[in-house]
Amino acid sequence: MKHTIAITMGDPAGIGPEVVLKALLVDSGLRDERFIVLGDRGVFQRTVRECGIDIEWDVVASPDEIDASSGDRVLVDFDNVPADLPREPTEQGGRASLDYFHAAIDLAMKGSAHAIATAPIHKTALALAGCPHPGHTEILAERTGSADFVMMLAGPTLRVALVTVHVPLRQVFELLTTDRIARTITVTDRGLREFFGIEESRIAVAGLNPHAGESGRFGCEEADIIAPAIERTLREGINCSGPHPPDTIFHNALSGKFDAVVAMYHDQGLIAIKTSCFETAVNITLGLPIVRTSADHGTAYDIAGKGIADCTSMARAIELAGRFACRRRGSG
Amino acid sequence: MKHTIAITMGDPAGIGPEVVLKALLVDSGLRDERFIVLGDRGVFQRTVRECGIDIEWDVVASPDEIDASSGDRVLVDFDNVPADLPREPTEQGGRASLDYFHAAIDLAMKGSAHAIATAPIHKTALALAGCPHPGHTEILAERTGSADFVMMLAGPTLRVALVTVHVPLRQVFELLTTDRIARTITVTDRGLREFFGIEESRIAVAGLNPHAGESGRFGCEEADIIAPAIERTLREGINCSGPHPPDTIFHNALSGKFDAVVAMYHDQGLIAIKTSCFETAVNITLGLPIVRTSADHGTAYDIAGKGIADCTSMARAIELAGRFACRRRGSG
Repeated sequence: MKHTIAITMGDPAGIGPEVVLKALLVDSGLRDERFIVLGDRGVFQRTVRECGIDIEWDVVASPDEIDASSGDRVLVDFDNVPADLPREPTEQGGRASLDYFHAAIDLAMKGSAHAIATAPIHKTALALAGCPHPGHTEILAERTGSADFVMMLAGPTLRVALVTVHVPLRQVFELLTTDRIARTITVTDRGLREFFGIEESRIAVAGLNPHAGESGRFGCEEADIIAPAIERTLREGINCSGPHPPDTIFHNALSGKFDAVVAMYHDQGLIAIKTSCFETAVNITLGLPIVRTSADHGTAYDIAGKGIADCTSMARAIELAGRFACRRRGSG
Repeated sequence: MKHTIAITMGDPAGIGPEVVLKALLVDSGLRDERFIVLGDRGVFQRTVRECGIDIEWDVVASPDEIDASSGDRVLVDFDNVPADLPREPTEQGGRASLDYFHAAIDLAMKGSAHAIATAPIHKTALALAGCPHPGHTEILAERTGSADFVMMLAGPTLRVALVTVHVPLRQVFELLTTDRIARTITVTDRGLREFFGIEESRIAVAGLNPHAGESGRFGCEEADIIAPAIERTLREGINCSGPHPPDTIFHNALSGKFDAVVAMYHDQGLIAIKTSCFETAVNITLGLPIVRTSADHGTAYDIAGKGIADCTSMARAIELAGRFACRRRGSG
């Protein structure tokens, strides 16, 4: 069986359909893959017209129709949304994007797909459709029953794993515990091995305060919470160091001294990634029973349908999903 | 009278002497400048030997000896420290670096120097010498009686001004007020005009929380504190916008959409600067009666005396001090 990547179209009104089409036309270097796109044929036809892209694929009405005779690019047409949906968050768009994503997860859980690459969805559309989660990662965690997931952003030269993600900065202080940090380090170490083939990873753990607290002068979380987590994971044989000053550690990682940086909060990690690898970073969920990557950008309703969306991140998400699937199956 | 730049040697035991010597040998493109270096001749002689650099300058024992017949490079030899000081923070090193800096400030305050460029000093050495301040900026603010100073980091493609600086992250929440943010925007706007000649500046103001709070979902400081500061400064005719999502605004500024970003806390701004312009960023103090720039790195005791320190930041600090002095005098 070929390595099979399930690709979701994302919110039908956003740039998802466009970046998926464009990304499928980029040569990923993968040679033994089948791509199953979960989306809506009418929306893709509109995108083809608007953006001047053309693509050939087999179209089926359900994943069950895919068999050995199907080609390497298959569209599963959910036929669940009008092609002329307005370019904004809608209940219909939210529900449709959930349909694609749930189907992709189910394919992966039963082994019919070996990895998932997702195009962007929109929180407001999800909420309008009655979904309580802010994004893919949380939906995935719930549907796969996983608690220890970690969000990683991976650019070509920098990988960042986050201890806390979508919470007010004020709330970071109560969420940061030695347990949570140690768990993030452990999941990151395992993810580097499983997904990137890095057997002896070097993990840098960032501090929380300026200059990593400067010996308590600018804060005590480094000594009280972060250092004990590093000591604990070091005892488990994981090669991690820190707490490092947050302002310079990403530069050091970019110059090749570390395989990943564990960041304490959303913007600490994302400012570094988006400043250094804006178009090329991919979002990866570690710690799940299934492999999932994602384009690291939003639905960008304002430029949807204009043919100007950059597909670099989506193409890298698909490529990484393929490589991860291949590595996991090879080692599994 | 030539544009005169006072340059401090910094901590005698750090890389200050080396980067000052090397930077003076870089062609700054400045043609009508005099450089007055405040330091110790014995320490410089040791640096010349250790690092294989040579330089010619006039040596005087006090700034009062400098007159029209002095050359364009003058060393004021304080003769206040042994050349073989250990490569670590010491009381002697701290006191000596304060002597150079105080003299530079006094030269600038009485108009004998038009700008100051400083080499790195060390907080611990300052403390050992009985100085209560963590760094140059605070010493300068006290000695010039200035309250509204703002720390800016300027790389070739990104400028960042900080609302709060050297405090624990936890303390940022109590320090962030509409007044303080509005003042920082105003000082930044004036600084861009005075120092960079940008008459119609475009200032981006960062949010505090992930996605700039996402309409209150991830925090309320954007609506409660930051937006009112932007409204107030807009009414004063300053072209500022925001609060912008912190993770993407620096990328947008790097691509030329803004002249400066006002950051809410140390690492928000410094992660962006150090990830994108590590060796080239210069520290500038805005809002002072005198012009002051500084190399954006520390004393690096561990590599001092080895001849391997990178002088890019110090050279840019001297060059910018020269250009600022020239612009200020021209417009003054």
